[in-house]
Amino acid sequence: MPKPKLTIVKIGGNVIDNAAQLEKFLTGFVTISGNKMLVHGGGKIASNLSTKLGIEPKFHEGRRITDADSLEVAVMVYAGLTNKKITAILQSLSCNAIGLSGCDGNLLQAEIRPKVPIDFGFVGDIDKEHVNINLLDQLVSSGITPVVSAITHDGTGNLLNTNADTIASVLAQAMSELYDTELYYCFEKPGVMMDVNDDKSLIESLSYSKYLKLREESVIDKGMIPKLDNSFDALKAGVERVVICSSEDLADIILKSKSKGTSIEF
Amino acid sequence: MPKPKLTIVKIGGNVIDNAAQLEKFLTGFVTISGNKMLVHGGGKIASNLSTKLGIEPKFHEGRRITDADSLEVAVMVYAGLTNKKITAILQSLSCNAIGLSGCDGNLLQAEIRPKVPIDFGFVGDIDKEHVNINLLDQLVSSGITPVVSAITHDGTGNLLNTNADTIASVLAQAMSELYDTELYYCFEKPGVMMDVNDDKSLIESLSYSKYLKLREESVIDKGMIPKLDNSFDALKAGVERVVICSSEDLADIILKSKSKGTSIEF
Repeated sequence: MPKPKLTIVKIGGNVIDNAAQLEKFLTGFVTISGNKMLVHGGGKIASNLSTKLGIEPKFHEGRRITDADSLEVAVMVYAGLTNKKITAILQSLSCNAIGLSGCDGNLLQAEIRPKVPIDFGFVGDIDKEHVNINLLDQLVSSGITPVVSAITHDGTGNLLNTNADTIASVLAQAMSELYDTELYYCFEKPGVMMDVNDDKSLIESLSYSKYLKLREESVIDKGMIPKLDNSFDALKAGVERVVICSSEDLADIILKSKSKGTSIEF
Repeated sequence: MPKPKLTIVKIGGNVIDNAAQLEKFLTGFVTISGNKMLVHGGGKIASNLSTKLGIEPKFHEGRRITDADSLEVAVMVYAGLTNKKITAILQSLSCNAIGLSGCDGNLLQAEIRPKVPIDFGFVGDIDKEHVNINLLDQLVSSGITPVVSAITHDGTGNLLNTNADTIASVLAQAMSELYDTELYYCFEKPGVMMDVNDDKSLIESLSYSKYLKLREESVIDKGMIPKLDNSFDALKAGVERVVICSSEDLADIILKSKSKGTSIEF
């Protein structure tokens, strides 16, 4: 018996920061028929709130460190404000959404990142073995659309900050056991670009060998590398299709099968 | 066939504000066997955050007005920080909790309070007809413990602030259709007092006629009146038992059937 289909969409920060863009994106998202899930990142609201509260952002070699205060802000904004705003808008669009974070129903149990060599603070790493697919299956097969924030927990009472792209990939990997799963990374660019400053330089299809070559040649923008690694991890684990695209093109790609965005190929 | 049993507990702000008290309370809560749900209020974290952000609290004749900024703070703190902290602690105590707000799965669809004669802002009123009991039944009968924040939605994309005592009552009323439901209001006092300054003046049992008489005589503390009205509303709608008690006595009352707190009688 063929598995049912599941569409997982990850929406990035820039769209979340703009109320009109977010509403437009969600209006497109609800037109996706069948089983679907949304994963969202943070946007600038959390850093703006941190600034207002006088919490200094801390970095180690350009990578953010999440101290206790920053974690509280992340939980308030990602698991609270953003997650509930998106869920309420989806409800108003007749999509029966449920906002979830990793602690909810033990959805995503992460491990706090080892403190050596660098202590990144309350940051959690997660793999596909630690996704509660039974809960998601129960919700999705009742016609409910999970909306997942990037806050996980470690099972000992700690909430943790986790990369939203990784969560989307790990969710897709885990759900592939039960569903024919497609994963769409939506952001503000048309897809993966040969030149980030040239919107016409879209790479329409990216194989793993081509990716390794372009990465070696430093053609691929550094910021895209984790997203691409997550994409290939998803394909390796049995996800049927991975596309990186503009949030504005999502509905066209899914509903009208238009060839937009970057199709990630094995 | 008898209905299955369901215990609904509402925990107030003072316990939430104190990490050690909260952990102690939750450790007692998880020992309640069978189906259970937790409803939580806000505590002082929201007003402290508002102060830090320079948001002036607005009142009309002593009653709080929720403007757009205050609503965002309430959503961040109640639906985000507090709800997820409690859920993560319950998970660490082997209780499979799921944190929910009113927008999640259309759990609690409120109506924004009429703007005349007084505009209270983003405040929602709710009745038992607007509780998604099917979702709660689905979760509870899977062994999941819902943890409900006092944030509702209106179905048109707005989040609303709603009184947590009312939410607990309305949830208990609605769930009485499917479950033999008991409702426990937990707070920092031993129960309803004849004299709020005398901890030995506990009213062990309070009937509706006695309540009306004591209210008439201004014996009942003003702050208790909405909680008591919610309690009697619950009993009238078929809730089996309503007790107002100290958060410290909850486990004793439920597990050891000790006579503590104020039993609300019809």
